[in-house]
Amino acid sequence: MAFENLTIKEILEKYRRIWAIHHASSVLGWDMEVYMPKQGIMERSVAEGELSVMSQELLLEPDFVALVDKAAGFDNLSEEENGIVRVLKRDIKISSSFPPEFVREVSETTSKATSAWKEAKDKDDYSKFAPWLDKLMDIGRRAADYLGYEKYPYDALLDMFEEGLTTDDVESIFSKLENELKPILDKILSEDKVPKEHPLEKLKYDTKAMSRVNEEIVRMFGFPIGERSRIDVSAHPFTTEFGVNDVRITTRYEGFDFKRSVLSTVHEFGHALYELQQNPDFMFTPIIGGVSLGIHESQSRFWENVIGRSIEFAELMHPILKKHVPEIGEYSPEEIYWYFNTVRPDLIRTEADVVTYNFHILVRFKIEKIMINEGIKAKDLPELWNEEMEKLLGIKPKSYADGILQDIHWAHGTIGYFPTYTIGTLLSVQLASHMEKDIGKIGEHVRNQDFKPIKEWLKNKIHKYGSIYPPKELVRRSIGENLEPEYFIKYVREKYL
Amino acid sequence: MAFENLTIKEILEKYRRIWAIHHASSVLGWDMEVYMPKQGIMERSVAEGELSVMSQELLLEPDFVALVDKAAGFDNLSEEENGIVRVLKRDIKISSSFPPEFVREVSETTSKATSAWKEAKDKDDYSKFAPWLDKLMDIGRRAADYLGYEKYPYDALLDMFEEGLTTDDVESIFSKLENELKPILDKILSEDKVPKEHPLEKLKYDTKAMSRVNEEIVRMFGFPIGERSRIDVSAHPFTTEFGVNDVRITTRYEGFDFKRSVLSTVHEFGHALYELQQNPDFMFTPIIGGVSLGIHESQSRFWENVIGRSIEFAELMHPILKKHVPEIGEYSPEEIYWYFNTVRPDLIRTEADVVTYNFHILVRFKIEKIMINEGIKAKDLPELWNEEMEKLLGIKPKSYADGILQDIHWAHGTIGYFPTYTIGTLLSVQLASHMEKDIGKIGEHVRNQDFKPIKEWLKNKIHKYGSIYPPKELVRRSIGENLEPEYFIKYVREKYL
Repeated sequence: MAFENLTIKEILEKYRRIWAIHHASSVLGWDMEVYMPKQGIMERSVAEGELSVMSQELLLEPDFVALVDKAAGFDNLSEEENGIVRVLKRDIKISSSFPPEFVREVSETTSKATSAWKEAKDKDDYSKFAPWLDKLMDIGRRAADYLGYEKYPYDALLDMFEEGLTTDDVESIFSKLENELKPILDKILSEDKVPKEHPLEKLKYDTKAMSRVNEEIVRMFGFPIGERSRIDVSAHPFTTEFGVNDVRITTRYEGFDFKRSVLSTVHEFGHALYELQQNPDFMFTPIIGGVSLGIHESQSRFWENVIGRSIEFAELMHPILKKHVPEIGEYSPEEIYWYFNTVRPDLIRTEADVVTYNFHILVRFKIEKIMINEGIKAKDLPELWNEEMEKLLGIKPKSYADGILQDIHWAHGTIGYFPTYTIGTLLSVQLASHMEKDIGKIGEHVRNQDFKPIKEWLKNKIHKYGSIYPPKELVRRSIGENLEPEYFIKYVREKYL
Repeated sequence: MAFENLTIKEILEKYRRIWAIHHASSVLGWDMEVYMPKQGIMERSVAEGELSVMSQELLLEPDFVALVDKAAGFDNLSEEENGIVRVLKRDIKISSSFPPEFVREVSETTSKATSAWKEAKDKDDYSKFAPWLDKLMDIGRRAADYLGYEKYPYDALLDMFEEGLTTDDVESIFSKLENELKPILDKILSEDKVPKEHPLEKLKYDTKAMSRVNEEIVRMFGFPIGERSRIDVSAHPFTTEFGVNDVRITTRYEGFDFKRSVLSTVHEFGHALYELQQNPDFMFTPIIGGVSLGIHESQSRFWENVIGRSIEFAELMHPILKKHVPEIGEYSPEEIYWYFNTVRPDLIRTEADVVTYNFHILVRFKIEKIMINEGIKAKDLPELWNEEMEKLLGIKPKSYADGILQDIHWAHGTIGYFPTYTIGTLLSVQLASHMEKDIGKIGEHVRNQDFKPIKEWLKNKIHKYGSIYPPKELVRRSIGENLEPEYFIKYVREKYL
């Protein structure tokens, strides 16, 4: 075992309770999304609220904080032990930053704002949500003040979701994308080689049959269904872990446009694999589990884009489709490949393809930055949104619902989350490039159904470290360089042009 | 709201955390039985252990205990408030009775004993379990000493499962059953009117089709599937509640002998209805939920035996069977009725019919009483078991697995639980008799699919009181008399002779 220091042992002993509450809250959350009867919501929310307060109190308990501070003073800790101290100090800092009345205000405001957002979106009436958005932006700015920052208030919010990420980091990433990816997108759209739409988008399928396809695909990847994992169905697919030996994904079935279902499943498998390949020695400790949203997304996007959107995967999937959904199996692997890789500017982020997706994030990043760093009124946001959409994707929302009201994130009070999607996308391709230096062509392994070297590489470079290192350091240690958008730009150029 | 006293309000404010942990533990337990991947067990057990210790600590927290003691001194509390104090004082007493090293010993012993029991049962080798059973009996006797008792140590164990139940109570019940029910059973078996077996026991069915039958039946009873409840599948059917608006049952599908599946479902529906018809004002308090195992079992047995084994139910179910499982629908309602009501001495308790079931419990009661009150060695138990089986049911186990090793209960350390099964069975018929005085023939209501008066009666006489009154008092208040086995004896006589 990696933990020899007595203070660390004492910390871990106490930490088990926090872990147990986290475990329970995760199960409660999972059940709420997949199986809970409708009216169970009120009692469930009360239970989750109480558990969250308990966990908070345990974390900020003076004896516990003192132990963590004591451990932070040691200079002979192992890497793992230092990781524990870093993660706990960060959690304690974030948790203790906000005064209780502010936490209550956030909770009440986001709850009401979410209802208002739903109504506004349903009725396409922005005025119902705008006053709440003003409040939420104000809350975001005050949160940043409580958390503290060096350069921009938005840095404090970015850091909450991706440790160490700054406005300047994201700025630099997106300026490259805007300068180099935008011309590539324009070229793709001006040529006829890449399809903009495909008849398979309309083709209806049987949910039961498609669930067999999904199951067969993830089993082929090595997903230990029944042993250490499950697949369920929910409106918005997600991955959750209750420990290293119980990692669950969900997927969705719209009944048409089957790539959504398959790619969601493959995406969530990527998240799940990150958790399944954790070091079991870290069980019950703060360093078990993926380190950040961006790194997590790099794993899901790796499987979704690098594997799931490859020609070799289309070939591998073809007989599975043929068996369970013969009407889809009539399309050739090449046709399915292009169907998985259409490029078409769309108003809706969640339906966007690999190339345009990042511009959806860029629109949101530009707006969030102004929201927090510069201060802007909600009333001025729709125009800004529409301008940016037009500039980057050449299309303009006809309704608020398709534009500024599209995402639930801001109503939930999450400002600073969106950039992690692009970080994950860019990093996934960068990792793939380094992986190929070590194990050869990924496509060849996919063709041979030989996923082991791929999974081993991910395990040894990323997964097994859990949360020992902060995300930027993890990337540097694993591949010897920082996040670099060039890899993704090259990938798009080579794939489409 | 029923709670005006400020001390009670303060107690309830603190109690919410205990409630939340109970809620979470219940969800964790449910998931473990129905959906958890196999290897999730280790981390799940650790989480449950930590939660259980936390809940214990909250209950025994000096400030909380002091508040409860303070409230116990008031003489102007409402019935509900008095109920809260009674339940909490009882929980605190039981929780504080056992020293921590004893709790640890129990947990370790039962965990190892359960493994030993499984092996012993699989190999039909009693010697593998006997030493553990000696330890478990010793633990039971020491538990009784810690809890305290007036007359017999076994009283202390009975009271844990059924508040206020004593050895003398159970003795008196069973002596009536032995004296009066035994001759009736002998007479049933000597005549040809009641079938001892039925071809439907062997008939195979499709699980999917039978699940539709079960769902249609409980929907007909008014089970709010999707709104406030669910049905899932598990090896051993059970009911669980996560609050008044989320009550879930499970059922089983062996693939043959369909009455097992249907009657299990109807049985669990009875448990669930008790929880669904709680007074929502008691939400988050210690008095929400069924008061005891015996009363709970009276509700499940009411639906299983009084409703589910009636001719009117067979008639009502007939078209449902015909629709989903036509090969069963070919049997007439009369044939199905008798299939549901066969009487046949069997070695296995869980497969026993309404009449012989109680003798299975009697065997266990006689043995448990000697285990705890008189002290006996495990090596002498198989003979005792076999003698009693022969005497009461006229059959003798050919293996330990069919005899002394049959149930998991003792391996879990639960001694004193079995009698609640018979209490529930007897009470269910007694309640039915009183119900008919108020609403007329139950069979008529069943025939007309008019379950509302039945459910309303149960709600107003039993359910809505939650745990305000201890079980004996609840029964006296509801029907003006004590538990009386005569009702059941009369029911069997009229039904079968």
